Amino acid sequence: MNYISELETFIPKERVSTNITILEQHSKDESYHTPSLPNVVIYPESAEEVSQVMKIASKHKIPVTPFGVGSSLEGHVIPLNGGISLDFSLMDSIIEVLPNDFLVKVQPGVTRSKLNQELKKHGLFFSVDPGADATLGGMAATNASGTTSVKYGIMRDQIRDIEVVLANGTTMHTGNLAAKSSSGYNLNGLFAGSEGTLGCFTELTLRVYGIPEMIVASRATFHSIDSAINAVVNILSAGIQVARIELIDELSIKQVNKFSDTNYDEMPTLFIEFQGNEAGLLQDIEFTKEILADLDNHAFEFEKDTQGRNKLWGARHNAAYAFKHGFPGKQLMTTDVCLPLSELAGAIKSAKKVLKEYNLDGGIVGHVGDGNYHTTLMIDTENQREVEYAENYNKHIVEYALERGGSCTGEHGVGIGKMKYQVLEHGTALPVMQAIKKTLDPENILNPGKIFYDE
Amino acid sequence: MNYISELETFIPKERVSTNITILEQHSKDESYHTPSLPNVVIYPESAEEVSQVMKIASKHKIPVTPFGVGSSLEGHVIPLNGGISLDFSLMDSIIEVLPNDFLVKVQPGVTRSKLNQELKKHGLFFSVDPGADATLGGMAATNASGTTSVKYGIMRDQIRDIEVVLANGTTMHTGNLAAKSSSGYNLNGLFAGSEGTLGCFTELTLRVYGIPEMIVASRATFHSIDSAINAVVNILSAGIQVARIELIDELSIKQVNKFSDTNYDEMPTLFIEFQGNEAGLLQDIEFTKEILADLDNHAFEFEKDTQGRNKLWGARHNAAYAFKHGFPGKQLMTTDVCLPLSELAGAIKSAKKVLKEYNLDGGIVGHVGDGNYHTTLMIDTENQREVEYAENYNKHIVEYALERGGSCTGEHGVGIGKMKYQVLEHGTALPVMQAIKKTLDPENILNPGKIFYDE
Ligand SMILES: Cc1cc2nc3c(=O)[nH]c(=O)nc-3n(C[C@H](O)[C@H](O)[C@H](O)COP(=O)(O)OP(=O)(O)OC[C@H]3O[C@@H](n4cnc5c(N)ncnc54)[C@H](O)[C@@H]3O)c2cc1C
Ligand SMILES: Cc1cc2nc3c(=O)[nH]c(=O)nc-3n(C[C@H](O)[C@H](O)[C@H](O)COP(=O)(O)OP(=O)(O)OC[C@H]3O[C@@H](n4cnc5c(N)ncnc54)[C@H](O)[C@@H]3O)c2cc1C
Repeated sequence: MNYISELETFIPKERVSTNITILEQHSKDESYHTPSLPNVVIYPESAEEVSQVMKIASKHKIPVTPFGVGSSLEGHVIPLNGGISLDFSLMDSIIEVLPNDFLVKVQPGVTRSKLNQELKKHGLFFSVDPGADATLGGMAATNASGTTSVKYGIMRDQIRDIEVVLANGTTMHTGNLAAKSSSGYNLNGLFAGSEGTLGCFTELTLRVYGIPEMIVASRATFHSIDSAINAVVNILSAGIQVARIELIDELSIKQVNKFSDTNYDEMPTLFIEFQGNEAGLLQDIEFTKEILADLDNHAFEFEKDTQGRNKLWGARHNAAYAFKHGFPGKQLMTTDVCLPLSELAGAIKSAKKVLKEYNLDGGIVGHVGDGNYHTTLMIDTENQREVEYAENYNKHIVEYALERGGSCTGEHGVGIGKMKYQVLEHGTALPVMQAIKKTLDPENILNPGKIFYDE
Repeated sequence: MNYISELETFIPKERVSTNITILEQHSKDESYHTPSLPNVVIYPESAEEVSQVMKIASKHKIPVTPFGVGSSLEGHVIPLNGGISLDFSLMDSIIEVLPNDFLVKVQPGVTRSKLNQELKKHGLFFSVDPGADATLGGMAATNASGTTSVKYGIMRDQIRDIEVVLANGTTMHTGNLAAKSSSGYNLNGLFAGSEGTLGCFTELTLRVYGIPEMIVASRATFHSIDSAINAVVNILSAGIQVARIELIDELSIKQVNKFSDTNYDEMPTLFIEFQGNEAGLLQDIEFTKEILADLDNHAFEFEKDTQGRNKLWGARHNAAYAFKHGFPGKQLMTTDVCLPLSELAGAIKSAKKVLKEYNLDGGIVGHVGDGNYHTTLMIDTENQREVEYAENYNKHIVEYALERGGSCTGEHGVGIGKMKYQVLEHGTALPVMQAIKKTLDPENILNPGKIFYDE
């Protein structure tokens, strides 16, 4: 019996698909990486089913690639060697909200917007907010982050427990419900960011937060990128509790204005959000005004009501889609380095200079409070020279960051696109990671060809 | 050539000791666990020396137990099978303070108080504060935490990079200087809390924080433990940004008063610290007053100046030493469970009831904002029945926590004392941890007999 028929003995046929449209949907992510078809797409409904899939896959040595909504940007979900694409979209229940423990239990296919709709009823919210409406399973697997991580931390920081099905079909838990633990090795952290290469996540217990008493969003515009970055450093050094501090350069503001029906000044801009109790927040804003007054600040404007705030953050979250829309027929490549804060201004200036030299279409946005920035590049994948320039540009940016103690990917993950930088970034730690992979997935069936080159 | 002579070929004799007093100092920690002598104590001065020690140890299959100041509480540093005790006290340089990146690079033997003395000059501080003046290497290896983790997080959260020497002598780095990364597997988190069983830490890069504009410490006393815990839940639910919130029960306050020359009311007490800008902090205090007024609050008193604050936190930090001092000849056993916040009141009440039934000497303190509490027990290790009662009491507390989604150790670690609870806590995840240990230390020379039973 071939493995697909074997799968069909316990998963109903309507959840085992070899339909070409479905296969194509699971052959790619939202980026420039070359698609590759899986042989079959399976829609599990429980951890037990996932476990059975893994048992059959390991018996037949068939690759398994977990799939959330495929919004990742480095080819993570592309089934390079075919096999099974395991789509978690039917496992999308919010299992339990535990308001007194500031926790929620979800299935992996729940998206961040669905979760936040539910949490709102309890006066709570989930903090991590990638630009796409990603699944929590996918976000855990890429260790996603976003605009709020400067205050609330990254995806890994929100994870209390993951129910994981391992390559051999064993189900285990990486953690528990307690706020901290020094018991045994930290598996929460290890599985977060493992990109489907160590196990399939079938349930997540995540931290949530109370909606703050007061929230004010603002836009600060500057005559130069340098002043914008200086403002970030000075605001953070002053201990001002910003909840978000995002850079959008003039090129990106231009695309945002076109796409989001805004008419923001096309200048280097910081979107800053303040959160807290009213008195503390107002003092923080006053202090920020003083800091900006000493810099080359053009304007500092506020959005106090929910609508204005949502519009502003909507525009920010849609920045990448704005570029996609602005350059039809071109594909998205985003750089994603993260540097120590003191190196950020230099990195961005260097990036802008080289971007101009290569004459590529793109702009810069960044979660600059964390030292993380992206160049959103739009490339014609049919144009060899353009692809080569974009690759060289990315390489320049990555090497600049690595030479200064940074990381080749702050939040998007390695996937296929950042594999070539792993040796340079991790050195002697890379064989340790590979040894862990080999121990937990000896047949290399879990998302093979990602993070590490095959030996 | 035996391994000690071989060690002496590259480490000067004065840093290779077989003196019995030195061996005895390295045979025990600060707890009730039975001592066991190493064969030799080595004081390395560099990562290169540590690497050479590990190469010789792995060639001869000699156990190596890293040693900070031996303040751990579960027998972590006891060289159960003899061998080498690797004492990091000479590797105690603060290598570099990077104020603009909010980072510091240190050698592992630096103690937390030495680090804070240096950071103060830069207007910065390091947040993690166990009751003992532990080394940063030891704190990283146990994933320590303390009074401030409710706001700043635990030791693992502070670690950006560790230079590690592995069992085979290879040196590697677990991370980098960037605030976040999704590149490869998260080794920072895996090595933090590994208790010397995966590698020796030879350098750490840690997060530091700006000293806040205003700090106010306070003491709130209650007529019952229940009201005290309710206060914690209500304060956290209201989004009040406490930096510390510690429970000290009436029995512990009594010992503290004797030892620290204070005369605090001998009632269930919360020590609470507020931090922030002045306006925000004052609003938080007003709000806290309202919350306490609705509860069975006896008094709420403030320490605004540095001296009063230091006295209060000094008294808290010395709580365990107060017990040691109050029961000369007895040994310290502390329980250390962590539970979801909603289960904490029930857990502490149950613990107090059973403590009374066994008629043991002890009191309860806790980092209650995290759901973590300790019973400080003083036991006569010569008295079999008392030891047995204490073990049963600990067992009751651990099982109560594990049944409710908690952890058997919130911060002290597993060492020898919590090995017996690892199966119950981790289930099918335990073999995964053991497989990682076996992969990275195939000869089991790094702190053998800790965390896991030998197979
Ligand atoms: C416009 C746009 C903006 C973006 N902005 C951000 C941003 O600000 N920050 C950020 O971090 N990312 C961002 N991303 C990238 C992307 O949204 C994130 O990587 C996200 O975490 C992917 O989630 P997903 O549900 O789409 O996962 P997928 O793309 O489906 O999968 C991602 C990876 O996770 C694995 N995986 C998925 N589900 C599971 C599971 N249940 N168990 C185990 N492994 C699983 C997959 O195998 C794959 O390796 C952006 C993407 C786009 C298109
Ligand atoms: C009075 C008192 C109060 C305490 N309060 C707290 C508290 O509030 N919170 C808390 O978390 N703990 C607390 N502890 C426990 C203890 O202080 C911590 O566990 C601390 O982290 C141990 O640090 P150390 O330097 O003493 O390490 P040691 O006890 O010397 O070693 C601890 C472990 O770390 C390993 N280790 C040490 N150095 C290295 C290195 N360089 N590389 C690799 N491994 C290494 C050792 O092998 C051992 O397994 C308290 C202890 C006492 C006595």
